Amino acid sequence: MHSIRITADQREQMVEITSEVEAFVDGSGHKEGVCILFVQHTTCGLTVSENADPDVKSDTISFLHKSVPQFGQNFKHFEPNSDAHIKSVLVGQSVVVPFSDGELLLGRWQGVFLCEFDGPRERTILMHIA
Amino acid sequence: MHSIRITADQREQMVEITSEVEAFVDGSGHKEGVCILFVQHTTCGLTVSENADPDVKSDTISFLHKSVPQFGQNFKHFEPNSDAHIKSVLVGQSVVVPFSDGELLLGRWQGVFLCEFDGPRERTILMHIA
Amino acid sequence: MHSIRITADQREQMVEITSEVEAFVDGSGHKEGVCILFVQHTTCGLTVSENADPDVKSDTISFLHKSVPQFGQNFKHFEPNSDAHIKSVLVGQSVVVPFSDGELLLGRWQGVFLCEFDGPRERTILMHIA
Repeated sequence: MHSIRITADQREQMVEITSEVEAFVDGSGHKEGVCILFVQHTTCGLTVSENADPDVKSDTISFLHKSVPQFGQNFKHFEPNSDAHIKSVLVGQSVVVPFSDGELLLGRWQGVFLCEFDGPRERTILMHIA
Repeated sequence: MHSIRITADQREQMVEITSEVEAFVDGSGHKEGVCILFVQHTTCGLTVSENADPDVKSDTISFLHKSVPQFGQNFKHFEPNSDAHIKSVLVGQSVVVPFSDGELLLGRWQGVFLCEFDGPRERTILMHIA
Repeated sequence: MHSIRITADQREQMVEITSEVEAFVDGSGHKEGVCILFVQHTTCGLTVSENADPDVKSDTISFLHKSVPQFGQNFKHFEPNSDAHIKSVLVGQSVVVPFSDGELLLGRWQGVFLCEFDGPRERTILMHIA
């Protein structure tokens, strides 16, 4: 089980981790399969999204920011981050990335992202090949 | 393919199933990998979320309850549970849980949950190791 | 790594692909496991949902259409499809489908769907068994 650490510098931010996935898959010696990623935290998520125009990231973060506001929802949780827990449930804590001959089989515009919803923080992501 | 049955006692409820996943992984004899869970129903979901403060669960259920209301959306489905189908699509029907040496590699605050959106009902969850 | 191509004929549409998954699993020779699907695009998604009443599909598409409107959110992305990128993140780009003895272990009402959010387009979906 491989582990990487990723740090966001804002409360809500998408941080691309495609090169970290590529490096793990390339070094694993596996010819074909899927790389399964899992983030060990409950106020962030993992997704696959567009990595060309950075406005896609900011539009996505902005939409989630408005749709699940941090305050004003009468949340009962003692920390002011129920919004981040909810965004984590909506986005999900894992992704799969297929590969063949050591190359990720991502589409033309796809990248792998950590979605930080309660940063800035360092996060641990596990990777496993199946 | 291992199967467990979980019953919620409310219409919308997060029921923790971490111990069931631990027991399956521990008994499987596998040293390292991921446990893949899949729920065989279309009005509930599976997620990983915080298992410390129960208010996180109620805040999450409350947010989804308000964001996808059961009535008043002019849903066409003949049963009054389109909201539950939609919540199932948003949360997802499967999760992966990495493990090593028979121990789940969950973060400090993570638990595995069935998210019931149209209970009370008994649900079947399948588990497979990869 | 098996690949299929699926075409939707509307901008937003759920297209059932259960028979394509069945055919791949049946022909793979694997006795038991999970079929992992991944869509190589950032403006659509994959999910498991009800395949009996088509109103579930239209209710789901209608809810997402209203909740993530194409226009009027001050999206900055230069293409008018930030809504589709966001729906893709919410629904997810992959699903797992367990099987045994060559038969998919879907629940009584479950089907596998491509969720198109920026069609009509042809999409490529990869399948791998683990």
